[in-house]
Amino acid sequence: MPPSAPPPAPDETPVAFQDPQYREAVVDLLAAIAYGEISAFERLAEDAKLAPTLEDKVAIATMASAELGHVARLRERLSALGADPFAAMAPFRAPIDKFHEHTAPADWFEGLIKAYVGDGMANDFYREIAAYLDADTRDLIVASLEDSGQHSAFVVDRVRAAIAADPRLGGRLALWGRRLMGEALTQAQRVAADRDALTALLAGGIDRPGLDLAALGRMFARITERHAERMAELGLDS
Amino acid sequence: MPPSAPPPAPDETPVAFQDPQYREAVVDLLAAIAYGEISAFERLAEDAKLAPTLEDKVAIATMASAELGHVARLRERLSALGADPFAAMAPFRAPIDKFHEHTAPADWFEGLIKAYVGDGMANDFYREIAAYLDADTRDLIVASLEDSGQHSAFVVDRVRAAIAADPRLGGRLALWGRRLMGEALTQAQRVAADRDALTALLAGGIDRPGLDLAALGRMFARITERHAERMAELGLDS
Repeated sequence: MPPSAPPPAPDETPVAFQDPQYREAVVDLLAAIAYGEISAFERLAEDAKLAPTLEDKVAIATMASAELGHVARLRERLSALGADPFAAMAPFRAPIDKFHEHTAPADWFEGLIKAYVGDGMANDFYREIAAYLDADTRDLIVASLEDSGQHSAFVVDRVRAAIAADPRLGGRLALWGRRLMGEALTQAQRVAADRDALTALLAGGIDRPGLDLAALGRMFARITERHAERMAELGLDS
Repeated sequence: MPPSAPPPAPDETPVAFQDPQYREAVVDLLAAIAYGEISAFERLAEDAKLAPTLEDKVAIATMASAELGHVARLRERLSALGADPFAAMAPFRAPIDKFHEHTAPADWFEGLIKAYVGDGMANDFYREIAAYLDADTRDLIVASLEDSGQHSAFVVDRVRAAIAADPRLGGRLALWGRRLMGEALTQAQRVAADRDALTALLAGGIDRPGLDLAALGRMFARITERHAERMAELGLDS
């Protein structure tokens, strides 16, 4: 390691944050993830009421808690960046709440698929964006999206068993999966239109690689493809 | 340490469990605590909806998650004792659900007080019983009741500020605290009447000290006293 460039102390701000627009974009991103997780907690806790057994209820409640468990570290980082965490989350409440309003599960299985597929889409999207960020922020985002996979075996098992018992359910749930994807894209587009710093982040900067339209297209293709893989895992057409 | 009496391996069953009634009582107790925590998760997640700010909502949701976080270890121990964890919880669903039905908070402050005072009462009660159990079970119970105290400063702060702003609120909330205590005793009595093994546990055995009526009276006096202390901390008469 050259003596002129010591590694930054863990809580020293990386050089990228000297660009106020970069800082603003990271605050937006962390706040959006944090509110998304708070909101996921609320929805999963609500869906837990639909559980057919106490064991299933505990499984969904545990997923809810795992989402909420990431919020503390995101809040800390937002404060360290000089932002008021809850004020920073405010702009994301309407689009995320709207997403949930428009995708309220009608039954236990719709709730399960939303938990699995919706969470998966959000994680893929944030991971894609994280690739364009400084290492500390990227690590925090990746850590904030972990755990969710632990629970997927439970969802896959329950949904596959239900479709085996009633094949017509598969058609309805496949439609539901498409609707989840459509609503997520609608709300993501709304956020992109409103939050200039976030959009600028994706476009890159002088010292930072960005996404041109072709790269953006490939990113959405990857997200869509992984969505299809998850649907297939559940035994559903996408 | 005498060579004739090696310490038991951590997962070796303590000698007390050779008494099937003791095992049954411990299964009952762990199952009651586990269902109590699942149910506390549900109610706190519901109360979080009443939160006046997003920050308050996250505080209550975090309390909900902390309750649920203890369930995994209780389930493991129940399985290790040869019980089906969810079947073991079944007898406690009606009394615990009834308690919650009869004490549904009418507003945010009633919810806060229920979270703090109700949780405190339950913890005191289980700790008192744990004192009569083998060391492993006692440690598990005490660990399962931890964390809750972390959040009490938040409740005390919010309730005291609200009473300072509107002193009439204090009268209503004091009545509410008494109702919580009354309902808890009603349901505890119902459980005691139904679960012979649990009642026998408190009465003791040949090789185990038990509670005579005088000791039982002192135990309830201690629980009531600690309830009064918590109410006083909130600025409420008990």
